[in-house]
Amino acid sequence: MEIRTGAREKAGKIQLIIFDVDGVLTDGGIYVGPEGELFKPFNCKDGLGITLWHRAGRKTAVITGRSSAMLGQRAAELKITAVWQGKRDKRQAYRELKEKFHLRDEEIAYIGDDLIDLPVMLQAGLAAAPADAVPDVLQRADLIAGNLGGHGAVREILEFILQEQNKWQELLADFLTPENNENNTLNLAQ
Amino acid sequence: MEIRTGAREKAGKIQLIIFDVDGVLTDGGIYVGPEGELFKPFNCKDGLGITLWHRAGRKTAVITGRSSAMLGQRAAELKITAVWQGKRDKRQAYRELKEKFHLRDEEIAYIGDDLIDLPVMLQAGLAAAPADAVPDVLQRADLIAGNLGGHGAVREILEFILQEQNKWQELLADFLTPENNENNTLNLAQ
Amino acid sequence: MEIRTGAREKAGKIQLIIFDVDGVLTDGGIYVGPEGELFKPFNCKDGLGITLWHRAGRKTAVITGRSSAMLGQRAAELKITAVWQGKRDKRQAYRELKEKFHLRDEEIAYIGDDLIDLPVMLQAGLAAAPADAVPDVLQRADLIAGNLGGHGAVREILEFILQEQNKWQELLADFLTPENNENNTLNLAQ
Amino acid sequence: MEIRTGAREKAGKIQLIIFDVDGVLTDGGIYVGPEGELFKPFNCKDGLGITLWHRAGRKTAVITGRSSAMLGQRAAELKITAVWQGKRDKRQAYRELKEKFHLRDEEIAYIGDDLIDLPVMLQAGLAAAPADAVPDVLQRADLIAGNLGGHGAVREILEFILQEQNKWQELLADFLTPENNENNTLNLAQ
Repeated sequence: MEIRTGAREKAGKIQLIIFDVDGVLTDGGIYVGPEGELFKPFNCKDGLGITLWHRAGRKTAVITGRSSAMLGQRAAELKITAVWQGKRDKRQAYRELKEKFHLRDEEIAYIGDDLIDLPVMLQAGLAAAPADAVPDVLQRADLIAGNLGGHGAVREILEFILQEQNKWQELLADFLTPENNENNTLNLAQ
Repeated sequence: MEIRTGAREKAGKIQLIIFDVDGVLTDGGIYVGPEGELFKPFNCKDGLGITLWHRAGRKTAVITGRSSAMLGQRAAELKITAVWQGKRDKRQAYRELKEKFHLRDEEIAYIGDDLIDLPVMLQAGLAAAPADAVPDVLQRADLIAGNLGGHGAVREILEFILQEQNKWQELLADFLTPENNENNTLNLAQ
Repeated sequence: MEIRTGAREKAGKIQLIIFDVDGVLTDGGIYVGPEGELFKPFNCKDGLGITLWHRAGRKTAVITGRSSAMLGQRAAELKITAVWQGKRDKRQAYRELKEKFHLRDEEIAYIGDDLIDLPVMLQAGLAAAPADAVPDVLQRADLIAGNLGGHGAVREILEFILQEQNKWQELLADFLTPENNENNTLNLAQ
Repeated sequence: MEIRTGAREKAGKIQLIIFDVDGVLTDGGIYVGPEGELFKPFNCKDGLGITLWHRAGRKTAVITGRSSAMLGQRAAELKITAVWQGKRDKRQAYRELKEKFHLRDEEIAYIGDDLIDLPVMLQAGLAAAPADAVPDVLQRADLIAGNLGGHGAVREILEFILQEQNKWQELLADFLTPENNENNTLNLAQ
């Protein structure tokens, strides 16, 4: 992971993280069958990362230029708080999310991989990117994951922010000493 | 493969190996179509490894947080002895397996890749992980495969244990001098 | 990216870029289900690259030896100007494209990865290839992408040509200062 | 590519090449949907390699432990001469192929990646393997491709043999000077 100047301090304030989909929650492949997009390849480690992020009281949203039933399925499974599909100009969706959650820019992180993500990445408090984002995005990100999109980049970024917020050790403890855990909190979506 | 202190001795006692599914028997991708998960990518080398493990008189089981018809299909093909699906708190499934097979912890190995695997990994006699497990799992494993999940990590770990138990040369001999082999034992699922 | 002698000057003149499909717009996999090819894996970064190329007033075409409904779907989504499918002798399709667009050879670039691409690659003004093209193609290309087919090679080549034509900074500016942009030009297919 | 002692001389005599499927013509993934195997990922560069091999007057066959409609589809498209499916003891299929084509062992090459391939690999005149074959196979191969199974290993091995037989330059010439080629021999399956 490449952590640029100021990224740790920025990470400490994040309440909401917004994901681009193709190339961030997936590997960037558009898997087209005879009648349109056939599937999207999400990642189970990203999934558990999102579940733990929610457990820490943090919020998530997705803004994507492509609409798909696949994303709806996956977002429901992971209880992603808000989903904006078919928003290629992502600025309007960003403004609506900011208002809905009563947040300031510095409390919002955005993970993106391509030019259409830049307008919101430049506005959000923390801009992060998977290792295989395009050069113009990599150049302007606060954080660059060591992993590729769809192969753990999102999990890596979520863990980094939770560690900066001193939340990670507590989340981890539930798995290391599960007998101290009264609720069945190990029953987690991934 | 990274072999940590004590791993060889631990491997010598294993009778049952339990697999996590996503990220261990697969690459961790969750391939979502318009109506839910479309397929799981298993691996033929892992498959033959499991078949040879059974031939050596050893047992297998699967415990997974996600339920899927795909896993049922693959487990039946490979004759995996026991399958627990939809068990995100894996400790209960572990206890049931231990009792069912009349085994002690030191006779059980577990291969996992994420935090939800930690409670059973810490209890089992041998804890193994694919190369791309999350950092908190890698830190606590006895054995780390050189291969990625879904790309031969399971096969590599099974071969290592069978070699430590002095079973591998005998299994290999059937393929090197098949004319000495009376039964059609080369007709193997993979 | 490997840029061979004369490639920059050649890139400056390109008006039309022609893509091979399998191994160039995809990773070269032929994903066969029980009733034939099931899907093709296109790439979202290539997609946005093609959309920006069109915005710069440039043209695109596809010539491919295999016919598929998948390619038709993807080409329509990206508004690829012309599609010739089932043309394994690609020279005739090349001649028709050249005539249709009233272009000279030096205004046409071709991206290919295998021997059947050589006849048109040798005729076109600029011959480009993904990093995993076969050796006989790599040897004869003007430009070799650092990325693999289906994993951003097309995007990388399009960006290179647009930069050589001094078009890239202008395209990028729309994303860096979107408030100066009157039209909703961020609503882009990818 | 790793070329072991005697491999060049052995390659010079090959008339028939036999392929294993999973892990050789594919990446070794077993892509399981709710009702069984959903697709197999073949490779277009391997496909053109097989077509050129046939053009050079050489023969091909497939012997595989798994049966699938997918393989039947792909083999028909590439005109693979003979297909034996569901033959996990591959020795019987090998004997039948040898008799059918009136060949001696030294005229037959076999490409395999796992233990069940060893009995025929040890009998055939030339034993080849993709880079990611299991260690016991790699140890006994005459030729090891630099590429992985399903990612060009088959193409690489076919090109090597055709070059050793002084056939490659002639095949390549059709693409470099297509105007000398009276028949539409560029219309090739890939």
